[in-house]
Amino acid sequence: MNRPEPLRKPFPAELLAALQARFGERVTTAAAALEHHGKDESAHETAPPDAVVFPETTVEVAEIVKLCGRHGVPVIAFGAGSSLEGHVLAIHGGVSLDLTRMNRILAVNVDDLDATVEAGVTRLQLNQHLNGTGLFFPIDPGADATLGGMAATRASGTNAVRYGTMRENVMGLTVVLADGRVIRTGGRARKSSAGYDLTRLFVGSEGTLGIITEITLRLYPQPEAVSAAVCAFPSVDAAVRTVIQTIQLGVPIARCELLDALTIRAVNRVSKLGLREAPMLFCEFHGSPASVAEQAQTVQEIAKELGGMDFEWATQQEDRTRLWLARYEAYPACRQLRPGNRAFSTDVCVPISRLAECIAESNKDIAKASMPVALFGHVGDGNFHLVVLIDPDNPTDADEADALNRRVVERALRMGGTCTGEHGIGYGKLDFLDAEHGDAVSVMSAIKKALDPANLMNPGKVVRAQEFVGLSPDKLLK
Amino acid sequence: MNRPEPLRKPFPAELLAALQARFGERVTTAAAALEHHGKDESAHETAPPDAVVFPETTVEVAEIVKLCGRHGVPVIAFGAGSSLEGHVLAIHGGVSLDLTRMNRILAVNVDDLDATVEAGVTRLQLNQHLNGTGLFFPIDPGADATLGGMAATRASGTNAVRYGTMRENVMGLTVVLADGRVIRTGGRARKSSAGYDLTRLFVGSEGTLGIITEITLRLYPQPEAVSAAVCAFPSVDAAVRTVIQTIQLGVPIARCELLDALTIRAVNRVSKLGLREAPMLFCEFHGSPASVAEQAQTVQEIAKELGGMDFEWATQQEDRTRLWLARYEAYPACRQLRPGNRAFSTDVCVPISRLAECIAESNKDIAKASMPVALFGHVGDGNFHLVVLIDPDNPTDADEADALNRRVVERALRMGGTCTGEHGIGYGKLDFLDAEHGDAVSVMSAIKKALDPANLMNPGKVVRAQEFVGLSPDKLLK
Repeated sequence: MNRPEPLRKPFPAELLAALQARFGERVTTAAAALEHHGKDESAHETAPPDAVVFPETTVEVAEIVKLCGRHGVPVIAFGAGSSLEGHVLAIHGGVSLDLTRMNRILAVNVDDLDATVEAGVTRLQLNQHLNGTGLFFPIDPGADATLGGMAATRASGTNAVRYGTMRENVMGLTVVLADGRVIRTGGRARKSSAGYDLTRLFVGSEGTLGIITEITLRLYPQPEAVSAAVCAFPSVDAAVRTVIQTIQLGVPIARCELLDALTIRAVNRVSKLGLREAPMLFCEFHGSPASVAEQAQTVQEIAKELGGMDFEWATQQEDRTRLWLARYEAYPACRQLRPGNRAFSTDVCVPISRLAECIAESNKDIAKASMPVALFGHVGDGNFHLVVLIDPDNPTDADEADALNRRVVERALRMGGTCTGEHGIGYGKLDFLDAEHGDAVSVMSAIKKALDPANLMNPGKVVRAQEFVGLSPDKLLK
Repeated sequence: MNRPEPLRKPFPAELLAALQARFGERVTTAAAALEHHGKDESAHETAPPDAVVFPETTVEVAEIVKLCGRHGVPVIAFGAGSSLEGHVLAIHGGVSLDLTRMNRILAVNVDDLDATVEAGVTRLQLNQHLNGTGLFFPIDPGADATLGGMAATRASGTNAVRYGTMRENVMGLTVVLADGRVIRTGGRARKSSAGYDLTRLFVGSEGTLGIITEITLRLYPQPEAVSAAVCAFPSVDAAVRTVIQTIQLGVPIARCELLDALTIRAVNRVSKLGLREAPMLFCEFHGSPASVAEQAQTVQEIAKELGGMDFEWATQQEDRTRLWLARYEAYPACRQLRPGNRAFSTDVCVPISRLAECIAESNKDIAKASMPVALFGHVGDGNFHLVVLIDPDNPTDADEADALNRRVVERALRMGGTCTGEHGIGYGKLDFLDAEHGDAVSVMSAIKKALDPANLMNPGKVVRAQEFVGLSPDKLLK
């Protein structure tokens, strides 16, 4: 819940005029639009941009970047606005580049299991488009995020334990650089040793090194069979130990999610599911019919030994959806635990051997908290989330949530983990990036300065704006 | 077969004295040692360093890098010397940093399926060490390369179709930067969105951005069951179509290798296997006993429809080894097709839908060649190799091999592929890197200049030395 740093400069009227001359009604400074583009799903305070532009092509993005560069004005890419660490907030003002009109699916290569899309295409849009091809795109961060945003934040979610994250599933990118040049990174070959891995450098760079306008993605054959299983446990520890053994046995589980008792209570309240209010695991298996049956059997045996109760499994779509309903509802249901509250989300990821301990200790913090705190996550990867409810009328809530976040992150780092498994740094986790990566952060800064010397690409995210103090943007830009 | 660029400067006596004072007998300028460290497995002409040092710790590597930096002298990391594009050649002179004494396995975390090793540990050494843990490290480029070298070249090999390449399997690195600072990238969490992906930036950077001294790697549970299958085909096309259908059906095949008829002939000659001299596929399946049986069954059915002959499969280790013998022998056997010849290896990788066409057209080139050219490779990824035999006494052979290489690479690029699937750029493929990545190469240069402004880290590889013309190393180094 950092406050935006007070480094806004007046917006040049000349730039606004140039944008309006070029893009007409696709430029707006309407208060509602600025407000909408100045916030995300995090609890960070809104930081509206000075203007919003809706480009429709890579060439238009390049034009906008060049215009802004000429005036020393920041450019912030905006997709679905579902980021969780203030990524899209215009904390130094500037132009919000709304990419949602770049929503064309440019190519689907069924034989090669890949697709190329514009940055504003959402993951559900892509999967609807793939209907009938026998293929799907597995990465599912919950929100119907744009694929550009997902690439920029290195998103993952429920399927990552089997299919990897955006890191593993972006094959290539079209990127508009800070100087307006357009490059293509990577390509459609399954592997390549040709030069530095620029694709992976831009994936997760949160719009700070350039604007991703097109993405080539890996697709997967739809599994012949899918089965789902849910199981309640006497303790979070027993549930987590079930996961650990499953992973260690090499079961190729496709999803493996933990919901704690409070999350189940929240879901019961909203959805009237009548589930046992105990920690639960939600699993999904993909493969041939024989293979998914075998996987479910293995997990059931492990769960039983660890006290698992009410084990249910289902292979039909309808039944699977019913079983998974609680997981799908978890985040919105938790937000309603105290209506009118803001939800503060954080996530950490630890080596799986430390997961049970990390969650147990975090639960001690949660027990002491004065507000409701739900815990759930992608435990197959060692990744879990806290959702902390903050009463906007209670002045101490935000600080308490901050302190809780800090304790959980510092614990994860002590255990060899990361300060964020999938949400990103934005500007909410800058301090933690330093704590996690030490001197390597200076290498990130060096790369940022090499590619964006005037610090106009989403400034203040991932790399601190202070790194650039003393630079005069106008002099550095050609 | 590029000739080293004539940019060698005299080696400073003061530096040699300083290295000898610090490292004693671990510094050598013996002709045999220089010769050994000035060549790899490629056909590029030997380019010996001025001295070789054998550091034993990361701190020692940092000391050497700082000493060399002070004198403006290049540093080239050296492992097993099995690179294939001149990566380790000291084309601008300098110090070869032989990392083979850094061969300690620092940690194996069985519960987390990861290990941390020093850069000089080889893949076979690691797998021997893992004996009895139930885990293994799958990446197998053929040679018993060091894991540092494999990380630096983004190596892959036979198992990549199932387990990915070094890109997917390096979790973190310790790197000595050009200024002697030591950083840690990545970590032991399965996923992270914490900042720029420096791990992936250094993986594949071929020692040009810093020296990798430690690597944290993903390990995998040894599959419960393994089965191998081999099958001969009436044509390369039929074999490749079998692979394409297998991949498109989502069969989680672990290895999938093609050997052409000439390669089989070479193997028969050396190993007296008496195999049918026809294109053959070598496959391996990992999973539960039921799953590997199911996979082998599926592939057999596809192969049969496409005219596959002599389908054999085996589940026992001994029988599997016998079946796979031809594949293991392929590279050395091809080198003996014309004894006394040098082997020129190249590799390309294309989207799998173009693989059959790419190989068919390359075979037309091969048919016209005046020397033996064998074709084999990791076709499950769309990746294949040519081994061209060059008679050192025939002055036109090298040029003919160059021209053949160029045709194959240009074809792969036209088909949306890459100029190297797994060998890397070294300095043998600099022109092709430009052709493949265009303006993105300037971004690579910008990163190189940001991290190694004096161009002392393996200069002339990946990024051209000419990029640095006009820089005075002494001024740029602090």
